[in-house]
Amino acid sequence: MSETTTDTEDTVDPTVLAARLAEERPADIADALNEHIPQVAAAILQNLPLETAVAVLDTPSLGDAGEIIEAIPRDRVVPMLTGMSADRVADLFRELGDPVRTDLLARLDSETRGSVEQLLRYPEESAGSLMTTEFVSVPATWTVAQTLQHVRMVERTRETVYAIYILDPRSKVLLRALPLRRLISADPDASVLAAAPTRRPVTISALASRDEAARLISKYDLLAVPVVDGAGHLIGIVTVDDVIDAMVERQTEEVQRFGGMEALDEPYMDISFAKMIRKRAGWLCALFVSEMLTASAMQSFQSELERAIVLTLFIPLIMSSGGNSGSQATSLLIRALALHELRLIDWWRVALRELPTGIMLGSILGVIGIARITLWQMFGLYDYGPHWVLIALTVGAALVGIVTFGSMAGSMLPFVLRALRFDPAVASAPFVATLVDVTGLVIYFGVAALILHGTLL
Amino acid sequence: MSETTTDTEDTVDPTVLAARLAEERPADIADALNEHIPQVAAAILQNLPLETAVAVLDTPSLGDAGEIIEAIPRDRVVPMLTGMSADRVADLFRELGDPVRTDLLARLDSETRGSVEQLLRYPEESAGSLMTTEFVSVPATWTVAQTLQHVRMVERTRETVYAIYILDPRSKVLLRALPLRRLISADPDASVLAAAPTRRPVTISALASRDEAARLISKYDLLAVPVVDGAGHLIGIVTVDDVIDAMVERQTEEVQRFGGMEALDEPYMDISFAKMIRKRAGWLCALFVSEMLTASAMQSFQSELERAIVLTLFIPLIMSSGGNSGSQATSLLIRALALHELRLIDWWRVALRELPTGIMLGSILGVIGIARITLWQMFGLYDYGPHWVLIALTVGAALVGIVTFGSMAGSMLPFVLRALRFDPAVASAPFVATLVDVTGLVIYFGVAALILHGTLL
Repeated sequence: MSETTTDTEDTVDPTVLAARLAEERPADIADALNEHIPQVAAAILQNLPLETAVAVLDTPSLGDAGEIIEAIPRDRVVPMLTGMSADRVADLFRELGDPVRTDLLARLDSETRGSVEQLLRYPEESAGSLMTTEFVSVPATWTVAQTLQHVRMVERTRETVYAIYILDPRSKVLLRALPLRRLISADPDASVLAAAPTRRPVTISALASRDEAARLISKYDLLAVPVVDGAGHLIGIVTVDDVIDAMVERQTEEVQRFGGMEALDEPYMDISFAKMIRKRAGWLCALFVSEMLTASAMQSFQSELERAIVLTLFIPLIMSSGGNSGSQATSLLIRALALHELRLIDWWRVALRELPTGIMLGSILGVIGIARITLWQMFGLYDYGPHWVLIALTVGAALVGIVTFGSMAGSMLPFVLRALRFDPAVASAPFVATLVDVTGLVIYFGVAALILHGTLL
Repeated sequence: MSETTTDTEDTVDPTVLAARLAEERPADIADALNEHIPQVAAAILQNLPLETAVAVLDTPSLGDAGEIIEAIPRDRVVPMLTGMSADRVADLFRELGDPVRTDLLARLDSETRGSVEQLLRYPEESAGSLMTTEFVSVPATWTVAQTLQHVRMVERTRETVYAIYILDPRSKVLLRALPLRRLISADPDASVLAAAPTRRPVTISALASRDEAARLISKYDLLAVPVVDGAGHLIGIVTVDDVIDAMVERQTEEVQRFGGMEALDEPYMDISFAKMIRKRAGWLCALFVSEMLTASAMQSFQSELERAIVLTLFIPLIMSSGGNSGSQATSLLIRALALHELRLIDWWRVALRELPTGIMLGSILGVIGIARITLWQMFGLYDYGPHWVLIALTVGAALVGIVTFGSMAGSMLPFVLRALRFDPAVASAPFVATLVDVTGLVIYFGVAALILHGTLL
């Protein structure tokens, strides 16, 4: 969104802007910086108090954060990176080119560098890449009072203190998660272990997906989910605010992919023309090439088409109905699978639901289609010829067949993709429509051959 | 998902099942209860400790919670409802029929009843309907120590204590929100107001949408957003876990609506056949009736069709390309508007991006289309007649026009809907495809008339 302001960049004094912004909330400062080119944003950030600049850089809605980091002199940026949460720094380092990244990493103090390097080792979109290493943990031998004192001391340097993780003093294995609210109302002299819930905490592996982290946090109403290694050692926590950001991103991806394109990872107005074409052309070409089969199918029915050109009138109508019913079924099943409402082995139950649903929906459309042809013929709006009753029947019967096939194909496609280890959300509305179109033509001409044999065909 | 277990319902002993489940987490108990019919689930709940039963009923993933509540004897269910969070009770009461609701409301103690009645007054999907009235507030005259003591006392009865709301002692207007982590590390003798951040908290009106609540919580990384009335009095808070549930629900709705149907408000396998048909048939019929315009368009081009039947071969291919590019553009703009990346007045900037994007994408498909026809003709796979070059040109040029029109129409539709005060997310992929189809036919035959005039036409 920098277009509106770039022409006036020269006249902007960063110190004035920084003074005006300093009292705003970090997320609002980030919004304001998004209106400027990275160089100006970097200049403004340097004129903000360090703590504020850190909070702004920690805000995921700040666009071009990587470029902003690059535009700040190294000696000024290192204290900012040190103050930021390690998972955010790791995210930014992923964006940065390699000479800069290595140089910046080398300048960080060894503790921060260690955390960032650890996070960079996990694949993007894994729970490990989302986690923070700034959590509070205490040995199980401590008392409530000791723990509370420790929380008070480290509070400033931890991303969250609302859950305290209790470790086995020797093996360092995670034993319990104690909510801060229970800690403050517990007997100060009691053991911290006695104050904790009797149940082992819900945990996640660092290699699990961020969707799984979101699911656990949402299901168990957690403020954070601890990440453990194979031996049960606590290596980090994924906090609810990171999960919300991941959910918003995931939602955008899901809708864009359902719309039939690769997910953009940037806001609409920020993405370059070349990237926009790349993200959209791939699927568009793949769908186009697949849809070419319809031309081949039409070619093979050419003699029927020549004898009964009236049949062509309804081709778009009938094909789109198959695509629409398929798109409905796919959207239903993508979400049902994403929400773990259904598992792979439930496919036959879904098929048994979609079959009668498709027949019913197809019959409704079939009746409307027959009514349309009858009305046009009756009122003289169009003459479908002497066999108009048979043509109406053909259209009606074809609709039942095609809508049923659309519902079945649309509902089974996400299962097939899951079985092939793809994300079911790859199945976009255009994908399903394309899949259904060729079969739709075959069904239409098949039904026509059956009903119109001896008359038109 | 009750089908798997209903046949063995008679043999299930609820006390045995309750004993087996009692140690599980509430969300897992809810999952287990979802496998049973509401009467059995009700029987198991009654055999659980009250605190556990309350936590299970508070879990949003518990299906048929309304029916379960109805199946529990009144004298047993009242203590459960009293223990539950008021916003969840209000949600369930919305589901319940009116004799039961009135009866249950009358049996609640006056404080709980008051809270629930207040929540029921707010429209569904508003921030007010999502909020909890179980928050911690203290007058600004209190000290840190007093406040901490108060938090310890009320902790058990509050949904969250991680933000303490500081009110003007006289007007009761909300002044500040103090995070618990800052409270516990503050000087005990200091005034609670002095320990709080200097900034007024982010607030929301009770009538704002739940999406707005989600946006604020996500943007400002909050654990809860306070809901205030017109005078600035605190009337409740919306907590992050309710917002996450709302986001998951919203995501499902968005995908289902983008798939071209009304959003289901229940899991796929739980919804009745009649309801499934209702939710899907409405849009399917509306789209079908609109798509009938394609039949009318084809009728008006019938003389062209008869003279150049070869043109019909590419109708499905060309039309689907317009729909696909439109679907891409719509999915992009729905999300960009939902995320507040773009405002209504930005429509012209989007149009200026989509125009060259559409031309570029259309040209890519056009080249592939021309290559396909040329190859088939060259290798003798199909004979498009003596004018095959002109036919290939027609297809190529029509693709540029149709894909450009699809991108433009698909990107402008969400803006038009927003301007008409509809949710842009009503614009589904099938909706866009239908919109583009008729114009696509007109463009195709228009281009054909231009290029083939004097030869085929």
